[in-house]
Amino acid sequence: MANNGGSSRRGDDGVGVGVTPSRWRFFRPTAGTPLAAAGSMSIRSVLNRLNSSVDASGTRPVVPLGHGDPTSSACFRTAPEAEDAVVDALRSRKHNGYSPTVGVPQARSAIAEYLSRDLPYELSPDDIYLTSGCVQAIEIMISVLAQPGANILLPRPGFPMYKSRTTFSELEVRYFDLVPERGWEADLESVKAIADENTVAILIINPSNPCGSVYSHDHLAQIAETAGELGILIIADEVYDHLAFGSKPFIPMGIFGKTVPVITLGAISKRWLVPGWRLGWIATCDPNGILKETKIDQSIQNYINITSDPATFIQGAVPQIIANTKEEYFNKILDLLRNSADLCYGKIKDIRGITCPHKPEGSMFVMAKLDLSCLDGFSDDIDFCCRLAKEESVIVLPGTALGMKDWVRITFAIDLPSLEDGLERLKSFCERHARVEA
Amino acid sequence: MANNGGSSRRGDDGVGVGVTPSRWRFFRPTAGTPLAAAGSMSIRSVLNRLNSSVDASGTRPVVPLGHGDPTSSACFRTAPEAEDAVVDALRSRKHNGYSPTVGVPQARSAIAEYLSRDLPYELSPDDIYLTSGCVQAIEIMISVLAQPGANILLPRPGFPMYKSRTTFSELEVRYFDLVPERGWEADLESVKAIADENTVAILIINPSNPCGSVYSHDHLAQIAETAGELGILIIADEVYDHLAFGSKPFIPMGIFGKTVPVITLGAISKRWLVPGWRLGWIATCDPNGILKETKIDQSIQNYINITSDPATFIQGAVPQIIANTKEEYFNKILDLLRNSADLCYGKIKDIRGITCPHKPEGSMFVMAKLDLSCLDGFSDDIDFCCRLAKEESVIVLPGTALGMKDWVRITFAIDLPSLEDGLERLKSFCERHARVEA
Repeated sequence: MANNGGSSRRGDDGVGVGVTPSRWRFFRPTAGTPLAAAGSMSIRSVLNRLNSSVDASGTRPVVPLGHGDPTSSACFRTAPEAEDAVVDALRSRKHNGYSPTVGVPQARSAIAEYLSRDLPYELSPDDIYLTSGCVQAIEIMISVLAQPGANILLPRPGFPMYKSRTTFSELEVRYFDLVPERGWEADLESVKAIADENTVAILIINPSNPCGSVYSHDHLAQIAETAGELGILIIADEVYDHLAFGSKPFIPMGIFGKTVPVITLGAISKRWLVPGWRLGWIATCDPNGILKETKIDQSIQNYINITSDPATFIQGAVPQIIANTKEEYFNKILDLLRNSADLCYGKIKDIRGITCPHKPEGSMFVMAKLDLSCLDGFSDDIDFCCRLAKEESVIVLPGTALGMKDWVRITFAIDLPSLEDGLERLKSFCERHARVEA
Repeated sequence: MANNGGSSRRGDDGVGVGVTPSRWRFFRPTAGTPLAAAGSMSIRSVLNRLNSSVDASGTRPVVPLGHGDPTSSACFRTAPEAEDAVVDALRSRKHNGYSPTVGVPQARSAIAEYLSRDLPYELSPDDIYLTSGCVQAIEIMISVLAQPGANILLPRPGFPMYKSRTTFSELEVRYFDLVPERGWEADLESVKAIADENTVAILIINPSNPCGSVYSHDHLAQIAETAGELGILIIADEVYDHLAFGSKPFIPMGIFGKTVPVITLGAISKRWLVPGWRLGWIATCDPNGILKETKIDQSIQNYINITSDPATFIQGAVPQIIANTKEEYFNKILDLLRNSADLCYGKIKDIRGITCPHKPEGSMFVMAKLDLSCLDGFSDDIDFCCRLAKEESVIVLPGTALGMKDWVRITFAIDLPSLEDGLERLKSFCERHARVEA
């Protein structure tokens, strides 16, 4: 369609143009640049690939066990009080204008009070910065921490958005392992081994995406102690906060804010089942004021000044969302997730070729290991997932996307009949492709 | 409060910590870095400074003529149909989950159709990328265009977010002047003089923030021709699209998309008076497919994959917002703005020491020149604006924030009584500070 022949022409719109340039100057390479590398590693780009592998002529519905968005299942509906709060905020017409860059004051207060319930000290509204979902909170923190020479410690397996943003910002990443045999706890010896004087932060995701684990008080204390010794801050991604349905309660990393500065990233996305509302936050859990002293708070403010905000009326609804949502709603969601996790874990146990080293206790995911020696003809986890999508219309996320080759991440936050159906198909698939013993 | 004395201590939370590091490793300098420079130049940081100059003991209300957000005036209320559309989308429960990174398909289609009404060719839904307000559209385009060595041409005066984002992304900026005596048209001779082989794009804001001008078909054609000759793309910031109330109609830059690739940035923020809803877009107006050929579209997609999105249910409301808003609503808003602009222009004419070279025809602003030789004892526009805030509780934006020293930007999108009150106070202020002839 394009015509850059270099010849003189008159545009169809009747405007005379001189010589059409033979080469436009704004060409952007799509390989080799940080942006190109960052943009190609997202979960959504992997899921797009899997979805395009699905046999379009198939008659069975696609079972999406690949992403952390349960909203397509009617049972995972948000609290009616939350919907009402948003409608009321919109109808009030008080929240159609721009918000302060840091967020609407009442929302900051409400979130400070909400988070403080679980902390041994009080957060101030000034500790809270509202963000467009937890994704923007990640974007802001990585942009703030990126400086020439600095490095950050990320868990493996992990959530790819951190890798994408560090790649884009050219912030060096060093990985520490989460250990499946120890309930996906962080290997703190390796943390100490890889940190150096240019290390600025460590990321802890709890409850864990993608592992489904929930950390104990003791393990969190060890992490805090290690970070304190290293002199680095903790980024605590708690977007799955309170979604703990096993024996261990959810404990916020911020309780150790006196030991080490903790920057907590959160959102209403998961607990309230509204990822599309794009309402998240950054909370500085730092009663000793070290983040102020080290100018991190000013850098967050600087970045927030040059980026967009969550919708003002959704911010305006936050106080009512928090105040009005009933305990029964939260309990119901936990029951749903517990039942789904139990079913998922039990079903996977029955599948030869897949093992699940740790029963999920939180979040919406479980990591399962592929034993390709039991299975016939798969080159790796990506091959496995693509053929599963093609033959069974079941989507699970290949571990390679999370830094764990030959594992898969399975989402159990979906209605039980669909989950059961998906896992049955997964079982048939593995049986059909079982390696025949010689 | 902080205690980094390097001594061994036990945290108040009962967790033993070893030796507290004497220096935390994550210190961020707040001067000298691109982030620090970018974050300090925003309009909101300037307005914060002015607001803090206001005499808190004053009895008169503050008259805010500094920003482009008329929503605090009851007369500038959005269309009820738009509010209804958002409530319906929310209540449908179909839009609580994540949207595709590029946007909800129905919203992309609706915006493509909406913009195509004024174009000589049809946009496809794939030409539309939904963004969190126009601010995120700016962020995406500057991030996409920033590459080592590249430069972009920005208008002076201009909208500071472009300067902030180019500073953060380390994209070189070269300025061309808008000429007040020629209705703030772009000085295209200077455009040609400053462009070189590393120039990738030129920014055109029409209707103009901050100038209040609306460009003619002829001038837009000249810009397109110039950009085509230079081989650079046009970023057309049309966030004030259709807010043209003078003799010239609003004409989208995209009509010249066959001459030169145009990337149009827009939003419902201004025409629908809902800046807080954070719903904007990037539209690739490029019927020759040059943006695809030069991989710009892929780079936009890459950036969109690693950033947040507008709220899904607001996206879901877009088709109804566009379909249901009545022509009378748009006409009413134009009448309000025309009356306000007339009052503003007339009043300023009567003030000695301030001149307005061009009657506003669009957007919500007018640029006015301070004649400090007629006024006594002001060092510059910032001094003028700070003292105006202090003595009269009237906020106007100093031109320095927009690249035009000793000018001011006055917002007239406010209810008429407040506008009249504010301009009367501005007049008293200038009279009180008139230089006494020797």
